[in-house]
Amino acid sequence: MKGSLLYEGKAKKVYSLIGEEYELILEYKDEATAFNGKKHQTFRGKGRLNNLISAHVFSYLKLAGIPTHFIQTLSDTEQLVKQSQIIPLEVVVRNVAAGSMTRRLGLEEGTELPEPIVEFYYKSDDLDDPFINDEHARMLMKVDQSDLDHIKAAAHKINNHLQVMFSEIELRLIDFKLEFGRLHDGSIVLSDEISPDTCRLWDQDTNRKMDKDVFRNDIEDLVEIYEIILKRLEAIVHV
Amino acid sequence: MKGSLLYEGKAKKVYSLIGEEYELILEYKDEATAFNGKKHQTFRGKGRLNNLISAHVFSYLKLAGIPTHFIQTLSDTEQLVKQSQIIPLEVVVRNVAAGSMTRRLGLEEGTELPEPIVEFYYKSDDLDDPFINDEHARMLMKVDQSDLDHIKAAAHKINNHLQVMFSEIELRLIDFKLEFGRLHDGSIVLSDEISPDTCRLWDQDTNRKMDKDVFRNDIEDLVEIYEIILKRLEAIVHV
Ligand SMILES: Nc1ncnc2c1ncn2[C@@H]1O[C@H](COP(=O)(O)OP(=O)(O)OP(=O)(O)O)[C@@H](O)[C@H]1O
Ligand SMILES: Nc1ncnc2c1ncn2[C@@H]1O[C@H](COP(=O)(O)OP(=O)(O)OP(=O)(O)O)[C@@H](O)[C@H]1O
Ligand SMILES: [Mg+2]
Ligand SMILES: [Mg+2]
Repeated sequence: MKGSLLYEGKAKKVYSLIGEEYELILEYKDEATAFNGKKHQTFRGKGRLNNLISAHVFSYLKLAGIPTHFIQTLSDTEQLVKQSQIIPLEVVVRNVAAGSMTRRLGLEEGTELPEPIVEFYYKSDDLDDPFINDEHARMLMKVDQSDLDHIKAAAHKINNHLQVMFSEIELRLIDFKLEFGRLHDGSIVLSDEISPDTCRLWDQDTNRKMDKDVFRNDIEDLVEIYEIILKRLEAIVHV
Repeated sequence: MKGSLLYEGKAKKVYSLIGEEYELILEYKDEATAFNGKKHQTFRGKGRLNNLISAHVFSYLKLAGIPTHFIQTLSDTEQLVKQSQIIPLEVVVRNVAAGSMTRRLGLEEGTELPEPIVEFYYKSDDLDDPFINDEHARMLMKVDQSDLDHIKAAAHKINNHLQVMFSEIELRLIDFKLEFGRLHDGSIVLSDEISPDTCRLWDQDTNRKMDKDVFRNDIEDLVEIYEIILKRLEAIVHV
């Protein structure tokens, strides 16, 4: 059933599926990386946690009517997805100022933004994922303005759903990164993963950081935090 | 007639006009600065050159139907303009990759872009004029999307006119920076200056740099180069 390894990224391995041309297996690894790979560490159990957390989040979004690549989980660390041609954009949605935005725009961490903001970054490890605008995206990749408008609208919609979902488990969704890809029929769907690796999540009451920042900034044990998030999601989302 | 000094920038002084509430005098200085003011030097005659070059360029654009702040030159170093509330955006238009774009997107200097690209930078010396997108602009300043669309369309139109104008004097317009402001009637007009301080201009045949890069990179005498540009413009534009 599991075919050949097509690609190994920092967080996941991508396998083909024998007999299923348009499906893939994503295998989540126990590796954590930060600062474009300059910091990395293995965390036993992280692959399982992100696989299951992402499965819960994608199931929630699917139920809410968002088209995604997600089909089903196959094991603790593997999930079945529709193969998509990933558009080389990191689509970042921000509700509260944190991370690079605070430095670039001189905002204090934790500042509530008047409206959610969508940013595009060009997925390129060599260039350190530079921040770009729509005109750069049209120049650098196979997208037109209507694709970009579609992606922005989807990102805002996903943000609305995720804010509701995370507030149900007492977390504030500060910001997050999405990837979109094109299925073989040409339609654009949400792909990749949504996990504490790709979101900033703060405890609603204490603002305790409940995401990869605990690893980036050596604050707390990553696995313990991710366990809490999975437990809380299991209580509200049925996969 | 000349009123009080309202503002002194790196390149110009701004004076009020006694009895004319909605007009200003821009006085061009002999100062050259680069790298956000970290490098600076006085060039005798530069103020006159930029004042007259900018006057020629704005006259050309006015004739082409572009709404601008420019009224007339008053002396070698002074010009009369309509007072405008400057929108804190540096609007950069690029036809050929150069400068920061080559580093950010990994393009070689001199690469012809498939289409001209407009970029917004937030005018803030403290933040080093960060590159922003439309959503940041809407958050940071008093503009809505229709203002931004208007500014982008105007920037593309101005680019078309300037490419024609500079090709008539054997120069390639590589990229340039514009500022827009709001008149007291609310309309948005092209403001500030257009000069070799704010454009990259390369000789059409030899690609010799004919702009502030000769100062930034210590290539040639700035005043000699700017003299050539003014001479050539005087031959084709009537102020
Ligand atoms: N449905 C899908 N079809 C095809 N590829 C996918 C799909 N979902 C995710 N991917 C891709 O799987 C790859 C592996 O994921 P991983 O997160 O490990 O990559 P990475 O280390 O972040 O590197 P990069 O994203 O820069 O390639 C990524 O390139 C991701 O874009
Ligand atoms: N029509 C106008 N009405 C009001 N202000 C103007 C007008 N045209 C230009 N200005 C402003 O005049 C100021 C002086 O110009 P100068 O180029 O010296 O400034 P600068 O050193 O570049 O600093 P900064 O642009 O960051 O204020 C600038 O702030 C510019 O935006
Ligand atoms: Mg990834
Ligand atoms: Mg200026």
